[in-house]
Amino acid sequence: MPIPGPGYAITARVEAPASASAAGDLAVAVGRVGGVVTAYDVVDARTDTIVVDISCNALNEAHAEEITAALEALPGVSVRKVSDRTFLLHLGGKIEIQSKVSLRTRDDLSRAYTPGVARVCQAIAANPADARRLTIKRNTVAVVTDGSAVLGLGNLGAAAAMPVMEGKAALFKRFAGVDAWPVCLDTQDTEEIIRTVQILAPAYGGINLEDIAAPRCFEIERRLREMLDIPVFHDDQHGTAVVVLGALRNALRVVGKKFADCRVVVCGVGAAGSAIIRLLASEQTADVLAVDIDGIVHRDRQGMDGNLVEIAGLTNAHNVSGSLRDALVGADVFIGVSAPNLFGAEEASTMADDAVIFALANPDPEIDPAVAHRYAAVVATGRSDYPNQINNVLAFPGVFRGLLDAQARDITDRMLLAASAAIADVVTEPNPSFIVPSVFDPTVAPAVADAVRSAATAAAAARPGS
Amino acid sequence: MPIPGPGYAITARVEAPASASAAGDLAVAVGRVGGVVTAYDVVDARTDTIVVDISCNALNEAHAEEITAALEALPGVSVRKVSDRTFLLHLGGKIEIQSKVSLRTRDDLSRAYTPGVARVCQAIAANPADARRLTIKRNTVAVVTDGSAVLGLGNLGAAAAMPVMEGKAALFKRFAGVDAWPVCLDTQDTEEIIRTVQILAPAYGGINLEDIAAPRCFEIERRLREMLDIPVFHDDQHGTAVVVLGALRNALRVVGKKFADCRVVVCGVGAAGSAIIRLLASEQTADVLAVDIDGIVHRDRQGMDGNLVEIAGLTNAHNVSGSLRDALVGADVFIGVSAPNLFGAEEASTMADDAVIFALANPDPEIDPAVAHRYAAVVATGRSDYPNQINNVLAFPGVFRGLLDAQARDITDRMLLAASAAIADVVTEPNPSFIVPSVFDPTVAPAVADAVRSAATAAAAARPGS
Repeated sequence: MPIPGPGYAITARVEAPASASAAGDLAVAVGRVGGVVTAYDVVDARTDTIVVDISCNALNEAHAEEITAALEALPGVSVRKVSDRTFLLHLGGKIEIQSKVSLRTRDDLSRAYTPGVARVCQAIAANPADARRLTIKRNTVAVVTDGSAVLGLGNLGAAAAMPVMEGKAALFKRFAGVDAWPVCLDTQDTEEIIRTVQILAPAYGGINLEDIAAPRCFEIERRLREMLDIPVFHDDQHGTAVVVLGALRNALRVVGKKFADCRVVVCGVGAAGSAIIRLLASEQTADVLAVDIDGIVHRDRQGMDGNLVEIAGLTNAHNVSGSLRDALVGADVFIGVSAPNLFGAEEASTMADDAVIFALANPDPEIDPAVAHRYAAVVATGRSDYPNQINNVLAFPGVFRGLLDAQARDITDRMLLAASAAIADVVTEPNPSFIVPSVFDPTVAPAVADAVRSAATAAAAARPGS
Repeated sequence: MPIPGPGYAITARVEAPASASAAGDLAVAVGRVGGVVTAYDVVDARTDTIVVDISCNALNEAHAEEITAALEALPGVSVRKVSDRTFLLHLGGKIEIQSKVSLRTRDDLSRAYTPGVARVCQAIAANPADARRLTIKRNTVAVVTDGSAVLGLGNLGAAAAMPVMEGKAALFKRFAGVDAWPVCLDTQDTEEIIRTVQILAPAYGGINLEDIAAPRCFEIERRLREMLDIPVFHDDQHGTAVVVLGALRNALRVVGKKFADCRVVVCGVGAAGSAIIRLLASEQTADVLAVDIDGIVHRDRQGMDGNLVEIAGLTNAHNVSGSLRDALVGADVFIGVSAPNLFGAEEASTMADDAVIFALANPDPEIDPAVAHRYAAVVATGRSDYPNQINNVLAFPGVFRGLLDAQARDITDRMLLAASAAIADVVTEPNPSFIVPSVFDPTVAPAVADAVRSAATAAAAARPGS
């Protein structure tokens, strides 16, 4: 039976007979049907009855109802109401605007707004570069989506993507002090998305693309990078690639292998897989095989789109064809960013000694992590209930902190690799259960920011005319 | 000589000989060249010298240099540096993002972001109306500009408009708890502006158009109102009209006249003038003459654009033609939203007894207020250094507070008139120097919000099918 996580958490307000055993009776009833009690608060106590808020994690709605029924079934107990703690947390949205200036007197108004603000506007009109000094552009990133690939849920559209983008904005602030604003676009036309971002760009110091479906996301990113003078980062691509490469760096330390000597299988050639392959290519990994639903990607495959053609050119030096099963034979590293339960013990057993398996499909990995552990020296997943969680939160806040501080005009593979190495180096002694730092390790974002800022500053200095 | 305001304020750090007369000597030197000392802080005192920060208001850059030179000219005094206090206040921008949710534990992350957020997204996809409950849409307004008419400065473009839009966002929060976000568009094409706002709209509970040039602003507002299910308010039009009509209501109380009996001259038929005329029309004012640079607007004038044709239809029942001078003869009310110094004592003397003059051109009114006072019973301007300042801050925060609280889908003249009356009624006993409340009166925004919410709720109840 799976263990309920905090994503589905309820609080039941319960009236029960006052007795020494009340707390125990209620907790036992919840546990018997598989609910995990996380909090118990008495909100009212009278001589004969008590009113208690019981918070617990459930699996899903049906399970929450089962827990409620189990409580109701206790003698003399009635459930007054059940609230869904996740929905409560999202009520009214998760971010707000704060004024950084005092507005208490007429003089404050005259300086922050008219007439004083006029001179500030004129200064920017005369010297547009001053926008990075005199406006929020200095610290602000647009989190842009068209809602076409929201989490693993698919095409939910702009409005339904808002809770994710707001959450992202909250994480940007929490982990790196970056002001990020959700920009959910009610269009899924590539040209309109590009034009809209171009129209909005002057107010922002960077663009974070998010949850835009492949292959549209590749063209949007490429074209925006060409036209804008601020960095464009697609978190599903570059954020994932940065963390995966950082984790892989430490996994290879643990097993004592080098990038250049490894055969790597990347399964899934969407946004994440393609970016991982590109970044691996710039790390000069010897031998990468890309695998998708049609098998190993090779130069002679028919009907490939522009992205796949490019991936075919970066991988598979010997131009082999075959299935995932074929690709895994003798492989040192498997990186899955694809679909649940693609292989098992049989295929895993054909991998090289001291294999590394990153099975990142969410919530169900490409291979059962318990099975993977029997055949691989290091295993990582995207889940928080196993060790080695590959989580983009390790990358994007620090990456943008560094880019904004350097006033970077673009973002390069060199900056991404620097971020990747910085994440890896936070773990001074990696071991099979500890190849990436905790997302709450406060040294991660500053280390990533430092690395990216240095790389960006070096790139700016090397640019002709600067 | 004009008196320096706080819009141009400097702080000079000065080293001076320590003596009992130091503070006096420095202040006298500043005052002698017309600077207004606003603060004096000793930052370091030694036996023979002191270091002082002197803050003062200046007229402009040349005046600031004159003040600095006057300080330098004192025996033994040296000025170490001069900072511009307005620019200091705008450094790094005036607003920031704040997370409303705690992100301290893994459980917090699981609820605010993945995997818990997925259920919230799905709920909105299933029922789009839930976006007003579960996202920032509930409390968030876009402050949209194309930078084509920034304050009185003209077409400065998107980036240079940011300081104004950020300031507006800060005022929204300060006066009514509304989260407003600056949306500065790098296009001045009407169709592109409309389409971009439409693409962005799902994330917002309202649209505040700002500093968009006429006549483009009329079409943008009209078309957006037709296509969007959230209210569209153009502050330069509707905000100004609401405050002007509120002020006029009280001015007429002071002079004991009624709207229906008044001859009103509105000078300037751009965004503000047109909206004032439309709102006056819905107040059933008997007799309005619109005047622009070509004289009185009348039905037979050649070469009028769509807006002017509409204004001609709403005004000038007797279809007279002539100049501003002609229009003023016998007029009860003059409302100017046009250009500086258009008329003087001679024309003002031809107005009706107990005339009302609102000369709102900024910074220099249509008539010198001192002259206006000799011929009118009530005078108002847009300036903070005269009584009766007509300031949009009295309207827009409360208007949007009410619209958001009512989850309004549109905005009507009835709601604007309700806001206008609410502003007027905050002043219980108007007199010639007190026809509008102070912008810092904390009862204004709640009163406006209440009035707008009631009108919006009534409108929603009256809508077919609701």
